[in-house]
Amino acid sequence: MSDILERLSEVIDQRRAAPPETSYVAGLCHAGLDKILKKIGEEAAETIIAAKGGDRQQIVYETADLWFHSVVMLKYMGLEPGAVLAELERRFGQSGVAEKAARTAK
Amino acid sequence: MSDILERLSEVIDQRRAAPPETSYVAGLCHAGLDKILKKIGEEAAETIIAAKGGDRQQIVYETADLWFHSVVMLKYMGLEPGAVLAELERRFGQSGVAEKAARTAK
Amino acid sequence: MSDILERLSEVIDQRRAAPPETSYVAGLCHAGLDKILKKIGEEAAETIIAAKGGDRQQIVYETADLWFHSVVMLKYMGLEPGAVLAELERRFGQSGVAEKAARTAK
Amino acid sequence: MSDILERLSEVIDQRRAAPPETSYVAGLCHAGLDKILKKIGEEAAETIIAAKGGDRQQIVYETADLWFHSVVMLKYMGLEPGAVLAELERRFGQSGVAEKAARTAK
Repeated sequence: MSDILERLSEVIDQRRAAPPETSYVAGLCHAGLDKILKKIGEEAAETIIAAKGGDRQQIVYETADLWFHSVVMLKYMGLEPGAVLAELERRFGQSGVAEKAARTAK
Repeated sequence: MSDILERLSEVIDQRRAAPPETSYVAGLCHAGLDKILKKIGEEAAETIIAAKGGDRQQIVYETADLWFHSVVMLKYMGLEPGAVLAELERRFGQSGVAEKAARTAK
Repeated sequence: MSDILERLSEVIDQRRAAPPETSYVAGLCHAGLDKILKKIGEEAAETIIAAKGGDRQQIVYETADLWFHSVVMLKYMGLEPGAVLAELERRFGQSGVAEKAARTAK
Repeated sequence: MSDILERLSEVIDQRRAAPPETSYVAGLCHAGLDKILKKIGEEAAETIIAAKGGDRQQIVYETADLWFHSVVMLKYMGLEPGAVLAELERRFGQSGVAEKAARTAK
């Protein structure tokens, strides 16, 4: 299961090269960064609304939407989801207090 | 690298059981769902701001913050990040157009 | 100019009573709170994106969208925009430091 | 009551000229646009959370925070809240359907 983010990255590579009308990803990348970022804002709001609503299936669905659009943004900016996972790896070898210090020092 | 989300889930399990002052995660879980969701809104905004700013390191950092707080929320709601990855897996075996249809039909 | 928020409140009252297909406001109120809140998240993101983009006309347009959807939410919850203006009035008779203290004490 | 947004604009003018430690507004303007925009994202999330929670006083409080930080952003960008009110005035002389058309045509 864990390699799905890398596979998602490949899927986005394939689709964004295609004409905008052939897939949602192609259309979104063609529309540009602002449209992708608007979706991140929208999906974050829907994740918050779903969590407050308490429907577990809806929470999973909206969080998947949020992560998916994050990956589209990363790819659009020439980045890989692996870079985000590497950043999480870097943080969570640290102890809790050290991690907090690292976060707030930023 | 790819198992970091599962490891993160374990780290959160360990830390949230501890007193609030011992780690950032413990403090956040103790503060409750609204504080966790506020952080998701804040980190989504910071991800958008970073993407508009174009600094690649900042984009990775803020996206990591967004995903991290998403995982804290999932765990708080009794869910696992694996459920979100499974949802992404379910979607991205589909073709682009089918996937869009699946999204908009929701 | 300053009474536009009260007039907006009246306009929303008129429109939300009408069938959903007759106006954007009627459709939004019929769709329910979650749809209204999703729009607040979306318009906040668009305001942030516009401010980073620096186009003054776009900033005004998106902020108007954000305030408009805030008023729709207030009305949906049985509140008036005047209650928000009264809260701002309450705060900005205070000195800067006192105001900050009031905010952080909340 | 309705002139509070103009008065708020004047208060922000006075405070932002002062040293950062003297008021919340001065500190925020000194910290720069990204910090102001982060607050807009945060307050939008808190408004959504409050609306889902249903506490009317909290909804008013968080919406006031959202509008206040919007005005700080406008002023930082050299704009006045009156420009947003004028945009709302422009829209709400229109009929509902025309207004929707105006919105979606943008």
